Amino acid sequence: MHLVEVAPRDGLQNEPELVSTDTKIELIRRSVAAGSRRIEAVSFVSPKAVPQLADAEAVMAGVPRAAEISYAGLVFNERGLDRALAAGVDEINVVVVATDTFSRRNQGCTTEVGIERWERLAERARTAGLWRTVTIAAAFGCPFEGEVSQRWVAELVRRVAAAEPEEIALADTIGVGTPDRVRRLVTAIAVIAPNVLVRCHFHNTRNTGYANAWAALDAGAHVLDASTGGIGGCPFAPAATGNIATEDLLYALDRMGVGTGVDLEQVMATGRWLGEVLGNPVPALLGRAGAFPSSGAAPA
Amino acid sequence: MHLVEVAPRDGLQNEPELVSTDTKIELIRRSVAAGSRRIEAVSFVSPKAVPQLADAEAVMAGVPRAAEISYAGLVFNERGLDRALAAGVDEINVVVVATDTFSRRNQGCTTEVGIERWERLAERARTAGLWRTVTIAAAFGCPFEGEVSQRWVAELVRRVAAAEPEEIALADTIGVGTPDRVRRLVTAIAVIAPNVLVRCHFHNTRNTGYANAWAALDAGAHVLDASTGGIGGCPFAPAATGNIATEDLLYALDRMGVGTGVDLEQVMATGRWLGEVLGNPVPALLGRAGAFPSSGAAPA
Repeated sequence: MHLVEVAPRDGLQNEPELVSTDTKIELIRRSVAAGSRRIEAVSFVSPKAVPQLADAEAVMAGVPRAAEISYAGLVFNERGLDRALAAGVDEINVVVVATDTFSRRNQGCTTEVGIERWERLAERARTAGLWRTVTIAAAFGCPFEGEVSQRWVAELVRRVAAAEPEEIALADTIGVGTPDRVRRLVTAIAVIAPNVLVRCHFHNTRNTGYANAWAALDAGAHVLDASTGGIGGCPFAPAATGNIATEDLLYALDRMGVGTGVDLEQVMATGRWLGEVLGNPVPALLGRAGAFPSSGAAPA
Repeated sequence: MHLVEVAPRDGLQNEPELVSTDTKIELIRRSVAAGSRRIEAVSFVSPKAVPQLADAEAVMAGVPRAAEISYAGLVFNERGLDRALAAGVDEINVVVVATDTFSRRNQGCTTEVGIERWERLAERARTAGLWRTVTIAAAFGCPFEGEVSQRWVAELVRRVAAAEPEEIALADTIGVGTPDRVRRLVTAIAVIAPNVLVRCHFHNTRNTGYANAWAALDAGAHVLDASTGGIGGCPFAPAATGNIATEDLLYALDRMGVGTGVDLEQVMATGRWLGEVLGNPVPALLGRAGAFPSSGAAPA
């Protein structure tokens, strides 16, 4: 199972206090040291829309580069792709929002226009040699329109697959998904778009995030997003709370014998450090409960 | 899927402040009003060992009785069964701990002696016409001995099944289980003891509790324990934190179309009330995030 570390981007974008560029670079450095090989580092969204992520170029200029490490940036439009190319990211992640209302609030356009935008960006990014992910946001429910039918999401998968992304991600942006839906959609993508990797992005807003991750893994998804400390949320989605935590997901994957190349103890240490830096204990539970079986002495 | 509400027993037994008998009865009354039909109300453990649960008789004397509501009490020994019979519970739950070290600390005897004790209690309870559950505690790991092999748990299932319980419960007492193990053990019980109901008891200590619940449901388990508010823990297990929350589990079950007869909004209200009574917000997330789709107006 491949993991994408999303704390630097999705994790921090909702923080009330501005996080320094140095702290972001340090977070990324620690993630790389722990074994992360794919990191969603930045977003090339308008600085006015998300001030927390305005320093994308400065972050990318400071991160450790190596052939085996791939940095992704969120891209919303042509201007964002220009910035992504100039900043030297390895991957772009383009978001298509499943409902018109949320799409308009998030990106200022309908879902249909969002798909067309993705197609143009995909073409340019292919020419530039970038890995391309397209994310279907609100794939399990919308904060404004409510239910999103699985048939509609499948249709969106068919549409966005035509531009030949390397990877299609299903995002439960507001944390309302359930494992039965995850299983069905992941299975459907394998049928509709058999040549792309399936990636899933879960929030644990209603305590279904880790069940969804297990359902995705079990249904054959290739990639899971997780955020060290479980920090994060979407500034445009009411009541969207943290991503699933890298350390909590890793605990389960390690114990199930699913290799990731990422070291649990180091991620736990980074989660504790993040809690100190942000001034609040992180939502991840592993830092409090400890791994099992304990790597230290048995409890008294 | 049948649920057993365990907040009055497992939920409260670790509370630092003594909870009044009236509060316990009110909690049970609210659970019944929300639709709960099986409630683990009390424990007939020594009052010295768990002072929080010393008022078992008084609680049972005050709860609403009806033919369709079944009250369970934890029973550890002959004296406990005497008390359970006198108090008029409908079910007993006898715990056999999977490892000797934890069994000694929890019950003052080895696992082997615990099994013999269960056999004697099962015989007496059968004669008295009580529903009998036997719980295998630490079925997914022990705080003192570490890993517990699935082969050993399967052997324990075979042993305890001989006394013909109505139900065998697997308890992840310290919250270390993972969904692959849950699937295998639940599946194994269906083979080893095909005539008993399979029940599972999960804690969310390391954010695997809800994934485990989904895995249990998916593998054909019949009954899940949950605690309103997600309160609870075991006083004899270091770092054991809350049970999975009834409202968070219900949210997922409702949305997956799995009927339980329990009303989500009422449980959420009870969770909020419990938080006020106990002086701390409960761990359940539904009370904070709200149900989805929202039963009220769409968010602004």
